[in-house]
Amino acid sequence: MAKQEDQFKNVISHAKEYGYIFPSSEIYDGLSAVYDYGQNGAELKKNIREYWWKSMVQMHENIVGIDAAIFMHPTTWKASGHVDAFNDPLIDNKDSKKRFRADVLIEDHAEKIYQKAQKEIEKARAKYGDAFNEEEFKATNGRVKEYLAKNREILERMARGLETENLADVKALIEELEIADPDTGSKNWTEVRQFNLMFGTKLGAEAANAMDLYLRPETAQGIFVNFLNVQKTGRMKIPFGIAQTGKAFRNEIVARQFIFRMREFEQMEMQFFVKPGEEMKWYEYWKETRLKWHLSLGLGKENYRFHDHDKLAHYANAAADIQFNFPFGFKELEGIHSRTDFDLKAHEEHSSKKLQYFDTEENKNYTPYVVETSVGLDRMFLSVFATSLKEETLEDGSVRTVLSLPSVLAPTKAAVLPLVKKDGLPDVAHQIIEDLKWDFNVTYDEKDAVGRRYRRQDALGTPFCITVDHQTLEDQTVTIRHRDTMKQDRVAISELRGIINEEVSVRNWLMKM
Amino acid sequence: MAKQEDQFKNVISHAKEYGYIFPSSEIYDGLSAVYDYGQNGAELKKNIREYWWKSMVQMHENIVGIDAAIFMHPTTWKASGHVDAFNDPLIDNKDSKKRFRADVLIEDHAEKIYQKAQKEIEKARAKYGDAFNEEEFKATNGRVKEYLAKNREILERMARGLETENLADVKALIEELEIADPDTGSKNWTEVRQFNLMFGTKLGAEAANAMDLYLRPETAQGIFVNFLNVQKTGRMKIPFGIAQTGKAFRNEIVARQFIFRMREFEQMEMQFFVKPGEEMKWYEYWKETRLKWHLSLGLGKENYRFHDHDKLAHYANAAADIQFNFPFGFKELEGIHSRTDFDLKAHEEHSSKKLQYFDTEENKNYTPYVVETSVGLDRMFLSVFATSLKEETLEDGSVRTVLSLPSVLAPTKAAVLPLVKKDGLPDVAHQIIEDLKWDFNVTYDEKDAVGRRYRRQDALGTPFCITVDHQTLEDQTVTIRHRDTMKQDRVAISELRGIINEEVSVRNWLMKM
Repeated sequence: MAKQEDQFKNVISHAKEYGYIFPSSEIYDGLSAVYDYGQNGAELKKNIREYWWKSMVQMHENIVGIDAAIFMHPTTWKASGHVDAFNDPLIDNKDSKKRFRADVLIEDHAEKIYQKAQKEIEKARAKYGDAFNEEEFKATNGRVKEYLAKNREILERMARGLETENLADVKALIEELEIADPDTGSKNWTEVRQFNLMFGTKLGAEAANAMDLYLRPETAQGIFVNFLNVQKTGRMKIPFGIAQTGKAFRNEIVARQFIFRMREFEQMEMQFFVKPGEEMKWYEYWKETRLKWHLSLGLGKENYRFHDHDKLAHYANAAADIQFNFPFGFKELEGIHSRTDFDLKAHEEHSSKKLQYFDTEENKNYTPYVVETSVGLDRMFLSVFATSLKEETLEDGSVRTVLSLPSVLAPTKAAVLPLVKKDGLPDVAHQIIEDLKWDFNVTYDEKDAVGRRYRRQDALGTPFCITVDHQTLEDQTVTIRHRDTMKQDRVAISELRGIINEEVSVRNWLMKM
Repeated sequence: MAKQEDQFKNVISHAKEYGYIFPSSEIYDGLSAVYDYGQNGAELKKNIREYWWKSMVQMHENIVGIDAAIFMHPTTWKASGHVDAFNDPLIDNKDSKKRFRADVLIEDHAEKIYQKAQKEIEKARAKYGDAFNEEEFKATNGRVKEYLAKNREILERMARGLETENLADVKALIEELEIADPDTGSKNWTEVRQFNLMFGTKLGAEAANAMDLYLRPETAQGIFVNFLNVQKTGRMKIPFGIAQTGKAFRNEIVARQFIFRMREFEQMEMQFFVKPGEEMKWYEYWKETRLKWHLSLGLGKENYRFHDHDKLAHYANAAADIQFNFPFGFKELEGIHSRTDFDLKAHEEHSSKKLQYFDTEENKNYTPYVVETSVGLDRMFLSVFATSLKEETLEDGSVRTVLSLPSVLAPTKAAVLPLVKKDGLPDVAHQIIEDLKWDFNVTYDEKDAVGRRYRRQDALGTPFCITVDHQTLEDQTVTIRHRDTMKQDRVAISELRGIINEEVSVRNWLMKM
């Protein structure tokens, strides 16, 4: 655990040091759970977005993209259920004046009990070695059984309390478990109450006649309200999808884990409209297709797993996450949800506009069912960045830090380095940049010994270093060094574009799907 | 004027009918001055953004991009002057209960007087023909002199009132001029008061200890607060630029002219940091460079002009707009501003952090000066879209609607059309799509006679139509039709990628600069 935490701290500091992610408004001591993408982060984020967009929109004849505004008519959020049900249960400690999510306090408590069972299991495993049977041990060891049952009981009671809006019982549970403020130890709690996570603002000049607006908490509704406009003007035939990337906002009480859970974040969503009854087929199709997309990046199959939801949201009849092995464990990276006709029906009801599709083959109208795929772009960024950051011990015993980003996503594709700052080598390097920059992000670096420059580009994640030396002046060749293998090849300047393109083009990466 | 208005209405309805722009939340009867980009609009907008980004970031070794959050620490807006000075003067009509911008009421009144002078001039021009000398007429005709003087006097008095915050005099001016509510004729006005245009929201769980945030009214400040982080981690040397695209929000009282002035909009900005004293050189450089970029799109040199600001904002020592000939006349498309060291100094003062650059050549610290280039992405969209929409009378007397978008920006690069829906032609068409889609957005269309399909693709702005016919089955050739010339060539399927790429690649378009 301590090692994991260190690794995560390392990710955060590397992200800052190499211009990937800065705390927002850092000169004003930051803004909690908001981050800015720096010169390299902006490019990586852009490249992830583009890789998603191409694979979803450009590659699919029956998927189109839209770009809806963050501001939407407030009735949208009444219809979607966000006004009434997009809440977190809050509790304040009266002594420390600190605010907590009641469910998180209880979950943390339950987790500690669960960990006790885990410790017993680990001890027994160490004792019995290969002969150890975990399932049998769990079923027979009294203490372990007790811990696991207690853990389950707590979580179930909490879930019941939240579901039935019996917040008094959630409070009672906190008191019975004697949960204390983790910092001060105080058990002096207020009541539990619901807090809506949408950010509000006002459109118009004065409080009296201003319109209450929300910053969208998800991009999906922008697709649903535009469903008919897109279907009709685009002559779309079911099954078809509408994709969108864009910002969403949630006033999280406790936002943590760096860019994993931010108050302002970006989603990449696609809503796929299908014939009722065919949703499970498409749900399975999209689960598989989306996993393939992730795997195409080569971050390791072992870092992904499906997690099927036991409890479904009010709008879903099936839901699964693609979880990723983040520095803090397996967590949701993407959700695939079979949303039924809930959203279109809800908007139909609240708007009194028919939101149906006329199926020319069946010669009838119906409300399509929807299968959604939804990735957090910032989470995706974190998964790629954290997994790519490695410390490697080299043959000579020295350690190099390398950010082995999938080259299709790397911010800069090549650094061009004159071996020395004289003899006209910088000029040749600049000429190479002048030629390559039409097709790729390339950078120039002449400072320090070339070995240090290689290390710097490794840490920046640049897939290629191109070194101009004195031989270049004679035969128009350069060395091209590969970030991951550190192998160097001598090639003609005229070959560079082809070599780089072969390695970084979206086309070639998507072909791996 | 009536013709211009018709044209503009035509632009708006074409944008909706062909999936470019939908009113936001239309099923809920819309949200004033907010729009959603449809399946073609999203691509056009994305292509404009990409064209800008490539020309600014990828092509310049010394310009990098960032992506700062919309939420920023509120002190940012105190430092920038937005909390205190980002206001519109409002006035209410007590009878109609309608709200107006006081300055707009006065400007409209002044404009009417100006138009009277214009009418006199037009009459005289019609009367005297080639012999007419406008300057002489203006100087000698009593009535015209009077109108022009009155117009000037009104505007000057208003400007004085607003600048000195003498709002009572602005109100007095409205009364003296007997300006009435344009709808009801009532002259029963409230006082004039200032209204801040920033949208506010609250971060955190409850009113009592929530933090007041603003939605950023401009993206520029995200660059200034990150100046040192980018400069240091990116080892940037002056002169260098930081570019950014992203959403900004302004609670405009009277938002109109379609997507020209929206409450939520997107900016494409670059802040160029220079040595103090060199700002005018760079100001001229960027004026020229940015105009060249616009001209590269081929929308017509006559549609652009510079407009130097007479009155400068509090942060500027020089400022000019690139104006475009919109359907409602020449208006600002891009601003180039010499912002001095105002912003960095202001943030230094409010944050108590040194925001200086150490110049290794001069061996000293200084606060850089800044030259800004700032385009409204939505305005850019409107300029491209409106200018490209044409009605052409063909040789046979028929009229075609064509959206002759610069092909580098067109949402779909080619439509592939089987001549008939049988004999295996659709299969061949799909095979062509399967091949081309790796590199371009392409679409399939088999409905209606091929002539109608050509017209539809013309109206959608698709640069190429590729038609698969029976000859294709024999010799693997197709016809490729060019949107603007309607010329058709017979080419091999294997040549298609090259032909399309030559015409649409960003590289080739940027080379026109």
